[in-house]
Amino acid sequence: MKNPVERLTERLIHGDSQKAALVFSEKNRFYFTQFPASDGALLVTAEEAYLLMDFRYEEAAHYKAKYCTVVGFDSLLGKLGELIQKHGIKQIYLETEQLSVAQARRFEASFQKVGAEVVLDDTLDSAIRDQRMIKSPEEVKKIEASQEITDAAFTHILPFIKEGVTERELALEIEFFMRKQGAEGIAFPPIVAAGKNGSQCHAVPSDNQVHSGDFITMDTGALLDGYNSDMTRTVALGKVSEEQKAVYDTVLKAHLAVIDQVKPGMPCCDVDKIARDIIEKDYPGTFGHGLGHGVGFEIHEWPRFSKTDPTPCAEGMVITDEPGIYIPAKHGVRIEDMLLITADGCRSLTKSPKELICL
Amino acid sequence: MKNPVERLTERLIHGDSQKAALVFSEKNRFYFTQFPASDGALLVTAEEAYLLMDFRYEEAAHYKAKYCTVVGFDSLLGKLGELIQKHGIKQIYLETEQLSVAQARRFEASFQKVGAEVVLDDTLDSAIRDQRMIKSPEEVKKIEASQEITDAAFTHILPFIKEGVTERELALEIEFFMRKQGAEGIAFPPIVAAGKNGSQCHAVPSDNQVHSGDFITMDTGALLDGYNSDMTRTVALGKVSEEQKAVYDTVLKAHLAVIDQVKPGMPCCDVDKIARDIIEKDYPGTFGHGLGHGVGFEIHEWPRFSKTDPTPCAEGMVITDEPGIYIPAKHGVRIEDMLLITADGCRSLTKSPKELICL
Repeated sequence: MKNPVERLTERLIHGDSQKAALVFSEKNRFYFTQFPASDGALLVTAEEAYLLMDFRYEEAAHYKAKYCTVVGFDSLLGKLGELIQKHGIKQIYLETEQLSVAQARRFEASFQKVGAEVVLDDTLDSAIRDQRMIKSPEEVKKIEASQEITDAAFTHILPFIKEGVTERELALEIEFFMRKQGAEGIAFPPIVAAGKNGSQCHAVPSDNQVHSGDFITMDTGALLDGYNSDMTRTVALGKVSEEQKAVYDTVLKAHLAVIDQVKPGMPCCDVDKIARDIIEKDYPGTFGHGLGHGVGFEIHEWPRFSKTDPTPCAEGMVITDEPGIYIPAKHGVRIEDMLLITADGCRSLTKSPKELICL
Repeated sequence: MKNPVERLTERLIHGDSQKAALVFSEKNRFYFTQFPASDGALLVTAEEAYLLMDFRYEEAAHYKAKYCTVVGFDSLLGKLGELIQKHGIKQIYLETEQLSVAQARRFEASFQKVGAEVVLDDTLDSAIRDQRMIKSPEEVKKIEASQEITDAAFTHILPFIKEGVTERELALEIEFFMRKQGAEGIAFPPIVAAGKNGSQCHAVPSDNQVHSGDFITMDTGALLDGYNSDMTRTVALGKVSEEQKAVYDTVLKAHLAVIDQVKPGMPCCDVDKIARDIIEKDYPGTFGHGLGHGVGFEIHEWPRFSKTDPTPCAEGMVITDEPGIYIPAKHGVRIEDMLLITADGCRSLTKSPKELICL
């Protein structure tokens, strides 16, 4: 597979030396160059891709940025103007979903002076979105490395789950563990929800204590080398009721059915339906969110396993499979893996066990 | 002082029932309503301010959001359209520095259908920026509470600074301590730079070990209840040379001169000059960044103590005073407090000692 800058050039520029794309958003710049920096810009032309960096980042970018030529600047607009003139660029695609109205205006006014028009439709956004949906083998390896930390954090946290421990204490322990393992951050603040709190799918960890008989849902992920991971497991403290067991088994059944049936070409909305039909049959109205979302450079990427996303599954996509049942004032269960879509089905990137663990 | 929504209404709407402001960015929504949510919008009209929240946040917002009426929505544009029609609004200010080109277009197209025009100049941005520069007494209390954790982290970390400990180990220990003390996050990834690394003002903590005779510069801050704090201290391991001591004393002299002389009405660029002149006299060209920046809801806010910001200091501003001397391949020293501008001068919100600590 070609490198990300080459893939974008191929998709968008088609060898036309008068065309260029300006990638300004922090996330997309990082995605294309593998170099994180809070400021700067990437100008992709038919001949060359330039990463413009100020004095704070220039030296490090020379060593670390990939797939581009690093150039320093004092004035970003001034340096961009030089490069536009040097290459005779007449048309520059901008990221309309990422760029602020004010910033787009500054670029437009400045580029006009050197004879280039900006393109403010969704051409660049959709090209990047489509490209980022399909992960390269290197990207998959990075997501797996990130998930290894998340799996390790799950193993690590189990002995901490005891009568009286709070959701917040567990969430902090998970976060610290991930950071000590080398994660540069967490993919999102861990969700730890015990007992009744489990019925809120986006519960914020509180001082609520874990008690015997509780389900404890933990939705966690690490951020490593720019790539996110995402996993949910629900465990129990002590014995669970038959009713709880039935809820768990239904969620697991829905989760496994997706792994069993998903394959390239299947529309994402049909994948959502596989899990939804199973849950709706026995627990109608209890699965209030979409089945999953793309994961990679951002924790929520395209496509979505949802009722409304018709995107066909394709080899190289990494999408979560996270059905749940939420029964207000009682409990909740969610089980989540990241699935890599393969040539003939999928492979889960998640190693933690799925059978109900009663601690 | 009036609440933040009332202050904005007074500044922008002037009782005109046909005017409204739409605050869409996450940070500004949080600032006005004290309620954090990754999605939603705040519509401020002459009569009422509405916080629009989806099902994930609606219930919590009813309990926790301040200064507004919480309304749930399935379709954000649909609910905004209803409210626009209900109030007969004809003109809606948008945040051009925050809003993406694509999102602004979606609002524009949708609001036109219900007879309202969007205003895409910098009226709303500059109103919010000017308002956020002046902290209310409640905001100052929150910044002080955040700084208490940062001060405690400094006291906590001193015994960890020993021969052979790495910058990264110290940075993680500071971060974990802040989180355990109740901070919801860190204001920014801690900067810990030892020895030669101290000459990079934005050094990223590395596996570089601390050695006897090193300066160790630690620039850290907590995030508590939405408010940031920011402090830098430079300490030494073991004995320092006369040369090091002279550098430290010059930075401290520049830092203290600012505290002594700053007062309302003084242009920010003149404040920068107080410190810069002292350093330039003995160490020309070694102080490569601005003297300071506003701190509050964001870690970098307006105004700036810089060569180019003419904003006059005003009572209620909270701005850092952080001069530094950076000598490449040798060492660096920075000392930073947050200063609250008062009626007749300033009050430092930072309690940690400033005399050189040799561990």
